[in-house]
Amino acid sequence: MKSSVFQVESMVVPGGTESIVRGGRDLFPLLPEALHGVERIGVLGWGPQGRAQALNLRDSLAGTGITVSVGLRPGSASAEDARAQGFSEDDGTLGDWLEVAAASDLVILLIADAALAANHEQIFAVLKPGATIGLSHGFLLGHLTAIGSDFPAGHPVIAVCPKGMGDSVRRLYQQGATVNGAGINASIAVHADPDGHGWDRALAWSIGLGSPYTFATTLADEYRSDIVGERAILLGAVHGLVEAMYRYFRIDGADPVTAYERSTEAITGPIARTISNDGLVAVRAACGDQDLFDRAYSAAYRPARDLVAEIYDEVADGTELRSVILAEQRLATRPMTEIGGSPMWSHSTEVHARRGTPDHTVWYGGSEGDGVAGVDAVTAGLFVATMMAQVDEFAARGHAWSEIVNESVIEAVDSLLPYMHARDVAYMVDNCSRTARLGTRRWGPRFQAAYEQIALPHLDRPADPTLVKDFEDNPAHDALAAAAKLRPSVDISV
Amino acid sequence: MKSSVFQVESMVVPGGTESIVRGGRDLFPLLPEALHGVERIGVLGWGPQGRAQALNLRDSLAGTGITVSVGLRPGSASAEDARAQGFSEDDGTLGDWLEVAAASDLVILLIADAALAANHEQIFAVLKPGATIGLSHGFLLGHLTAIGSDFPAGHPVIAVCPKGMGDSVRRLYQQGATVNGAGINASIAVHADPDGHGWDRALAWSIGLGSPYTFATTLADEYRSDIVGERAILLGAVHGLVEAMYRYFRIDGADPVTAYERSTEAITGPIARTISNDGLVAVRAACGDQDLFDRAYSAAYRPARDLVAEIYDEVADGTELRSVILAEQRLATRPMTEIGGSPMWSHSTEVHARRGTPDHTVWYGGSEGDGVAGVDAVTAGLFVATMMAQVDEFAARGHAWSEIVNESVIEAVDSLLPYMHARDVAYMVDNCSRTARLGTRRWGPRFQAAYEQIALPHLDRPADPTLVKDFEDNPAHDALAAAAKLRPSVDISV
Repeated sequence: MKSSVFQVESMVVPGGTESIVRGGRDLFPLLPEALHGVERIGVLGWGPQGRAQALNLRDSLAGTGITVSVGLRPGSASAEDARAQGFSEDDGTLGDWLEVAAASDLVILLIADAALAANHEQIFAVLKPGATIGLSHGFLLGHLTAIGSDFPAGHPVIAVCPKGMGDSVRRLYQQGATVNGAGINASIAVHADPDGHGWDRALAWSIGLGSPYTFATTLADEYRSDIVGERAILLGAVHGLVEAMYRYFRIDGADPVTAYERSTEAITGPIARTISNDGLVAVRAACGDQDLFDRAYSAAYRPARDLVAEIYDEVADGTELRSVILAEQRLATRPMTEIGGSPMWSHSTEVHARRGTPDHTVWYGGSEGDGVAGVDAVTAGLFVATMMAQVDEFAARGHAWSEIVNESVIEAVDSLLPYMHARDVAYMVDNCSRTARLGTRRWGPRFQAAYEQIALPHLDRPADPTLVKDFEDNPAHDALAAAAKLRPSVDISV
Repeated sequence: MKSSVFQVESMVVPGGTESIVRGGRDLFPLLPEALHGVERIGVLGWGPQGRAQALNLRDSLAGTGITVSVGLRPGSASAEDARAQGFSEDDGTLGDWLEVAAASDLVILLIADAALAANHEQIFAVLKPGATIGLSHGFLLGHLTAIGSDFPAGHPVIAVCPKGMGDSVRRLYQQGATVNGAGINASIAVHADPDGHGWDRALAWSIGLGSPYTFATTLADEYRSDIVGERAILLGAVHGLVEAMYRYFRIDGADPVTAYERSTEAITGPIARTISNDGLVAVRAACGDQDLFDRAYSAAYRPARDLVAEIYDEVADGTELRSVILAEQRLATRPMTEIGGSPMWSHSTEVHARRGTPDHTVWYGGSEGDGVAGVDAVTAGLFVATMMAQVDEFAARGHAWSEIVNESVIEAVDSLLPYMHARDVAYMVDNCSRTARLGTRRWGPRFQAAYEQIALPHLDRPADPTLVKDFEDNPAHDALAAAAKLRPSVDISV
């Protein structure tokens, strides 16, 4: 990563340093220079990422003369919301996707993965000479590789990949309007750089989105960590874990609301907040029964690591991508089934209503009714073991530490889990990107089975001292602390 | 399918007829003629199929002068059992796999799929000119296609694929020694036929194994239906279903033994026996609450069909095969985790001990204690819906009816479920072929999640009259009745 405009800093991480760039609204005046001749930015698609990025970029570039336009497919149902947000056919900031692509100097491709797979050729065909192709994750590279194709020559290909869902990208940018740098961290990659300005343009785009700190990756590394992460600790594993724990507590005699609180609420509430504020080891300290945490951690680490390794292999091999394409073909004629019908979710409203009521004892651990506001040690042990399994697998596969902690920890506790806390896990799974939804359906049940069939039945075995020590000494804690120093002083409010 | 030795009959199936050959011990004297010059048969591998086929063929060919030898890898732990069964280095009927392959006129490849993928080239290299390559399922074709390779030219390539696990192939052959034709049905395929005797050799091999009726398929069709079937109704779906139902009944207040009986025992016992003896529609009639059966059927059919279609796509596309290869690479350094740790299985002994005891009310339906010896309507509805989903998906993909009903119904109720009844489902899953074990781990949890998250929450919806009518009028019932006429008059005893 290099820049002729922004200051590149070194962040100390385990085993060395990594180059990062700190964001901030004070840098917005530098964006036009860094964009090197980009006068028109076209954002194709109005999903959560398209919407958030178009709005943030328009706000950040206000007054610079650089326009941000939104391109939609003919008849898109999103046009109404885009108009309500001020994009307009009249002034040319809203239009047909191919026309917007043809008129833009930077074309940001934020349509759904399957649509991108089906339509990238006609988009490439209309690009201006030398126009920059912008991506927000590496899916298209994986697809092009799989079909033996490539990006068109002569075009810069860059990526800015926010480490949070689209809604967070917008919401934290707005909530941080008065806090310099509040937003979602992002990784950037320069895949093709024919004019030598790829890094500056990517940095400008990232800073314009509000990223507090931007780190470098490659499209291939980003693709792997992003797709694996959402199938593991970010979505799939969380869904599998709460389904397993809910039934575990129910069979153990808990009423539905308590079982919900000890499983889902514990993770999306106190566990996420504890990790966000004080790191991973603090979760263990917050458990009343630390030996039980250690035993749960020890029972879950190996099966969780096995699953993360399996997912990683399938993603790196292209198998996972094939399955997404096959699923989209099947789903062409019928809607994806929803998972929100699971019994637990019918109690969401009741659970949420109890939050903060005076006569409701917040209870996440210890014995029922004793009012310990800690975290359930079994739920916590399984969750943290899975998070560390992903961290360790990513480290073993050679990912940069910024990418590891953002994709395994920060994105979870600062973006996704707060959303799940506000809605619920099933709502999240039924409303994220189609690739993520398909991946969660595919891998969530695998995690559930691993917890039910391997981890939970082994809770009575003594903790594995080697695993516990590896957890305490894990280099991820230092990497996370380094990243935390760059964390904006505003918590997301959903 | 054609034969110059055996009588090819026409079996009436929905939409036409299919060619089949009836088996029987009276045909054993014809085997040498049908084998057309095969003097030495080499069976490579001593897994359940290798063991069963080597023993059955040796018994069927006794006195003909045709020898059956077993080939094992150097240092194989199976040598001891092979010797105990009468194969011997001294008389040349037990030896190194490559030496046995080099000395045989028909080389039957029954080593594990991954070993076959890794070692087929060195086996092919030592074959006698014109020696016949024998397979018992289509895995190797899938692998060769995936790596852009092929079988060596000049060799007949034939397959005989028993529609039951190896233990059943041996056990039913022995138990049916006095009943002409008792054994496990098999499909046969001729993939390469340079000398024109492929069908006769395959028929001889099938009849020699004890197959009561043999039907024709292709290696590709066999591969797809076999791999999909074991991932769906034969193993994966059964495992997912009993895990889901056990927890469902436990949360509903049932004690562990009753929950086990209403889930696993109901399927492996009365449901399997009812289907085997009286067909699929009879299961509905055996339920005390037929409306509940219809509602359970209606709630489960679509999610089950979606999953079978997904599995079929992944198998046909080669994705599933890639995942097996990737898993074997990961597992090279550590054992596969077992699934038998799930809480239910700790009650197997207790459940089995209650069978047939005078004071134990056999209870599978109605209200607890009322002694209705029917089947649990919810368990039955979900199971039969999944079985029909597989039947319908196979029919939609153009499989022969003999293959459909054998791979979806007969193999389940006459081979696998009786074994699960004798052991338990987890034991089966932990002890079947590695490809099947991996597939069950992969897809069982998906079925569990589909039942838990989609089917069971919708039990209170009215039954779908179209789905119920489609079930009652399904052409599979006629195909099953036609196959049943060829069924030997001996039940498997495990």
